[in-house]
Amino acid sequence: MSAAPRLVLATHNAHKIAELRAILVPALPGLLPEQVVGARDLGAPEPVEDGLTFVENALLKARALAAATGLPAVADDSGLSVDVLGGAPGIFSARWSGRHGDDAANLALLLAQLSDIRDPHRGARFVCAAALVTPDGFEHVETGELVGTLATEPRGTHGFGYDPVLVPAGERRTCAELTSHEKHAISHRGQAFRALTPVVVRVLHG
Amino acid sequence: MSAAPRLVLATHNAHKIAELRAILVPALPGLLPEQVVGARDLGAPEPVEDGLTFVENALLKARALAAATGLPAVADDSGLSVDVLGGAPGIFSARWSGRHGDDAANLALLLAQLSDIRDPHRGARFVCAAALVTPDGFEHVETGELVGTLATEPRGTHGFGYDPVLVPAGERRTCAELTSHEKHAISHRGQAFRALTPVVVRVLHG
Repeated sequence: MSAAPRLVLATHNAHKIAELRAILVPALPGLLPEQVVGARDLGAPEPVEDGLTFVENALLKARALAAATGLPAVADDSGLSVDVLGGAPGIFSARWSGRHGDDAANLALLLAQLSDIRDPHRGARFVCAAALVTPDGFEHVETGELVGTLATEPRGTHGFGYDPVLVPAGERRTCAELTSHEKHAISHRGQAFRALTPVVVRVLHG
Repeated sequence: MSAAPRLVLATHNAHKIAELRAILVPALPGLLPEQVVGARDLGAPEPVEDGLTFVENALLKARALAAATGLPAVADDSGLSVDVLGGAPGIFSARWSGRHGDDAANLALLLAQLSDIRDPHRGARFVCAAALVTPDGFEHVETGELVGTLATEPRGTHGFGYDPVLVPAGERRTCAELTSHEKHAISHRGQAFRALTPVVVRVLHG
């Protein structure tokens, strides 16, 4: 018989689940990798993401998941925030072209919109909010940012989303030209999850 | 022989030229309608609109036109500013879909992006900056706003751009369901040009 799940993640992305397992399992004696599970494994429904900020969306996803499963739940919301667009695409990053999850269309649209904008006005940042919510109502959110500038053409094959156009400050490569290891070391998501990890450990340990 | 031009407008839109003539000519004895001309009539080149705000774009268009023609020049820049998009589309309103001037595509994209956003979070406003620049360096800018909310479907056949989705505060109709007369009485462009008119009159009178 397998060990009972102890933490549920609001994602269906196997890579994200593996990533959080890799952070949490070494940090928490007695936690088995298979005790960190995805929402789909528990049959949890997907909530409507109708928040107006990354933090609101991360919290509402984690709250819904904790309520549906009775387990501590971790959720994140992230996206690209472009200076001359006043922070947009922001929470609309994944559906910027109107087609949800169509990375190529979203990225092509953004580059077309900004085609007349030159350096030094192409500043942008990736933002991530990561939330932990427990069934008894404990809530904690951490955020991370990766500041950079937008390239005029996509470059690189790693990563996903807007990675091929964001050049981190101090770098010449786009996020899609960094190795996975390099990217996680500086990324918005890496920062937010590293900050959230000790809080998750305390909750699971208690 | 026709009277020499006295004021040039940075537009190729015959309707906009007629509109400003209709405001200016009654206000300025001795001014003939044909003395208010469009940039194209004088062969003036179109500048690159690389400003980051409506005011910057209006000023750079008027400056370029005054320099090219040696006449007092009026230019405007306007667009739609959506609250949950942090003010975007803003200066990118006319090319939001990546296809410059494709009103239907721009509007369809905006509605798709905001499809999960419900009242009371669909606030938006039209913004207009209208600039007067003279060849000897006098500059003046006025702005106007029309505040409202975004409908979920286009309605109405008048106007252009995002008119079919903006419902002005206190109205139940979209701007495209208002008559031209009703719209100009409250519009961002109407407000900005009415505020600029006495300044234009002083410059032409002096």
